[in-house]
Amino acid sequence: MPGLVPGIHVFTTWRRKDVAGRDEPGHDELTSFAMAVPAISPLAPKTIPKLPAIAGIRLATAAAGIRYRDRTDVMLAMFDEGTSVAGVFTRSKCPSAPVEWCRARIKGARARALVVNSGNANAFTGKDGRAACALTAKLAAAAAGCKIAEVFLASTGVIGEPLPAQAFGGVMATLVSAANPGAYDEAAEAIMTTDTFPKLATATARLGGAKVTINGFAKGAGMIAPDMATMLAFVFTDAPIAAPALQALLRAGVVDTFNAVTIDGDTSTSDTVLAFATGAARAAPRIARTNDPRLVPFRKAFNAVLASLAEQVARDGEGARKLVEIVVAGAVSKHSARRIALSIANSPLVKTAIAGEDANWGRVVMAVGKAGEPADRDRLSIWFGGIRVAHKGARDPGYDEAAVSAAMKKPEITLKVALGLGSGRDRVLTCDLTKEYVAINGDYRS
Amino acid sequence: MPGLVPGIHVFTTWRRKDVAGRDEPGHDELTSFAMAVPAISPLAPKTIPKLPAIAGIRLATAAAGIRYRDRTDVMLAMFDEGTSVAGVFTRSKCPSAPVEWCRARIKGARARALVVNSGNANAFTGKDGRAACALTAKLAAAAAGCKIAEVFLASTGVIGEPLPAQAFGGVMATLVSAANPGAYDEAAEAIMTTDTFPKLATATARLGGAKVTINGFAKGAGMIAPDMATMLAFVFTDAPIAAPALQALLRAGVVDTFNAVTIDGDTSTSDTVLAFATGAARAAPRIARTNDPRLVPFRKAFNAVLASLAEQVARDGEGARKLVEIVVAGAVSKHSARRIALSIANSPLVKTAIAGEDANWGRVVMAVGKAGEPADRDRLSIWFGGIRVAHKGARDPGYDEAAVSAAMKKPEITLKVALGLGSGRDRVLTCDLTKEYVAINGDYRS
Repeated sequence: MPGLVPGIHVFTTWRRKDVAGRDEPGHDELTSFAMAVPAISPLAPKTIPKLPAIAGIRLATAAAGIRYRDRTDVMLAMFDEGTSVAGVFTRSKCPSAPVEWCRARIKGARARALVVNSGNANAFTGKDGRAACALTAKLAAAAAGCKIAEVFLASTGVIGEPLPAQAFGGVMATLVSAANPGAYDEAAEAIMTTDTFPKLATATARLGGAKVTINGFAKGAGMIAPDMATMLAFVFTDAPIAAPALQALLRAGVVDTFNAVTIDGDTSTSDTVLAFATGAARAAPRIARTNDPRLVPFRKAFNAVLASLAEQVARDGEGARKLVEIVVAGAVSKHSARRIALSIANSPLVKTAIAGEDANWGRVVMAVGKAGEPADRDRLSIWFGGIRVAHKGARDPGYDEAAVSAAMKKPEITLKVALGLGSGRDRVLTCDLTKEYVAINGDYRS
Repeated sequence: MPGLVPGIHVFTTWRRKDVAGRDEPGHDELTSFAMAVPAISPLAPKTIPKLPAIAGIRLATAAAGIRYRDRTDVMLAMFDEGTSVAGVFTRSKCPSAPVEWCRARIKGARARALVVNSGNANAFTGKDGRAACALTAKLAAAAAGCKIAEVFLASTGVIGEPLPAQAFGGVMATLVSAANPGAYDEAAEAIMTTDTFPKLATATARLGGAKVTINGFAKGAGMIAPDMATMLAFVFTDAPIAAPALQALLRAGVVDTFNAVTIDGDTSTSDTVLAFATGAARAAPRIARTNDPRLVPFRKAFNAVLASLAEQVARDGEGARKLVEIVVAGAVSKHSARRIALSIANSPLVKTAIAGEDANWGRVVMAVGKAGEPADRDRLSIWFGGIRVAHKGARDPGYDEAAVSAAMKKPEITLKVALGLGSGRDRVLTCDLTKEYVAINGDYRS
């Protein structure tokens, strides 16, 4: 196990399921991480799904040595001709160079390759950053035999340092020759920064008379100095969906999944979700529009993959010990409910109370009040773990403190607020704010 | 020292200055706090000003036993007839009962009494909360011999618990008889919750041919379970300023003082700033309008008192070890600069980096980007402690890491961002985010 840091937790406790649901052996290869990996999040899923092959997609990983030693840090996905692409990106006004690269090329609608590197975000790197993108795409296009404009890029890691993209030159030919349809788990691992577990999801759906598959993997809000917390997610399918329809699906799909997860309210310069549809499922009808009724079961499965990946990001929040679902009901609109839910989810006072296993509804009232959305204190009711603790503007006189206390000790907590104003409802996922968050993000200068 | 908690830091290290600037003896009486007071903030001012008497104002404090034992928890200020009042309040949509009480009465323009209690915020208390306000005001009006509508109220402390306002009945007569013009320091102490030091400021100004005085005290973002962090501030002057002019002065004055301070981005249900002008400085001209040119020096002194109190609130941020000034220049407007400055100041990633003494400008770029305001990555420059670390969209190649490292070790740090877009400029004060913040707000369930 080269490069293993003594004393750190290693990734041997996972059980993997294969596609038939059988346990696979423990997962020893990840013990080669050379950075000070924290213990696996206590909220990590108990099992990691094994992703099936999707026709038209091959993946490979390599160690380009950009930042880490003795671990993979670059991932190549190759797509057969005719693959549609769609993407959504950070709303940051200061996006990374790869985000600008993808935005400029997403309208081309076609993808043949995706190159993702961890260890260097290629953000705030000026002209050099644009040049690094161009060089990476050129190297990948030459090796994969496609056009430069068909290469998509994502980077995560250190910010403000030039990305030495020439390092990809040494591994690109190997990546292309090694690419195979079964390498999703290696791909998910290669894009990790301080994630404590790889994030994978898969689903199948009927499309017309055919069965199609949707695979996805993501990295979440891991941070190591001076890296950015960044969310990257990639979704793949063999369904024949035209780029505009795929774009509409993805844009709608992220609303209640990736856009409904918050760790600390901070927004990376690099957040990227890309979807690729190879169309290799020839028995399926070609879908040109998202309102095609045949798309209904596919949309459901596609959104389930996004939702699973987004939840895994929340489960790997920095220092998280509690997965927190915030449900807001009775708002004047869904939009208003979302803003109130995010105000609660991003409140340091609510998050520290949950870390302290305290059903502190006073802080929830505070967070509702500061959201700036319509709210009537005297109609407000609040539940922790399904137990109503406040009702119509005052402490619920009947609530059982022992039951609430027991609910707060659980690793997964639902906090519900009913506003009593309308039928607007929404839900976001977050995690608690612990001293470990501060340690991860503030203590690295030793 | 009754009620002293063993092992806690006690308030014996302050030096007080009297009005002539001479050192006063150490301040032993505060050692009687019965709650687990944290150590004094390392950012506390080295000296505490001694506030002079202002004609027409008398103050007194008492222990009503609402929540704390062996400490004062209620403060009465009495004003001579003819005192003008102005107020600004939390923007929370779920304000406390005393905030609603004051809002409804501020238009009356006259004040004879102010009652502030710590230990119970009287927030989220429904009808009982309104009744508690009415009873408190009735008790105060009866004792002070004024109208109920001339009594102003503020509360801070536990939320969601009924305020047993009848407890004030037992102390109100004593408060009225004990009220004296020199009790500012006792008043500032009586309104503290988990503040680690009392916050006082004073200034004088010429108004016409007369000298007038401005005194103020505040409490800041202290928190103890399950209390709310709340900012309360009270400003007093003998200047004869009519209520509408005082209101305009106060509303303008808080913009760059109390509204430019953030600890954690959370907004209390109870934030209150009240200003009282007795008009006892008979030699001064009566001011009816804020554009009266004679008001210029007064406005400057008034704003200086607000600024001093606001800075003291930042210096007492929960767990704070660094006072951080965020300066944003070159924005498209002051409003835009403010939003970007607050985005930086409220970013957990920026705040933890500063706690770690890391000049992590990547996180500053992130916070600029997420503010949603116009910004051009390639024009951005960033300084920590006056040292430029990033310039025109990339790391500043010339910066001296050792100098930056030394600057980051200081207890006071200025973080400047130049956007290069316009002439909009603003400044906010904040503090770092430490493990102690999480401990104060999350660890109290023992």
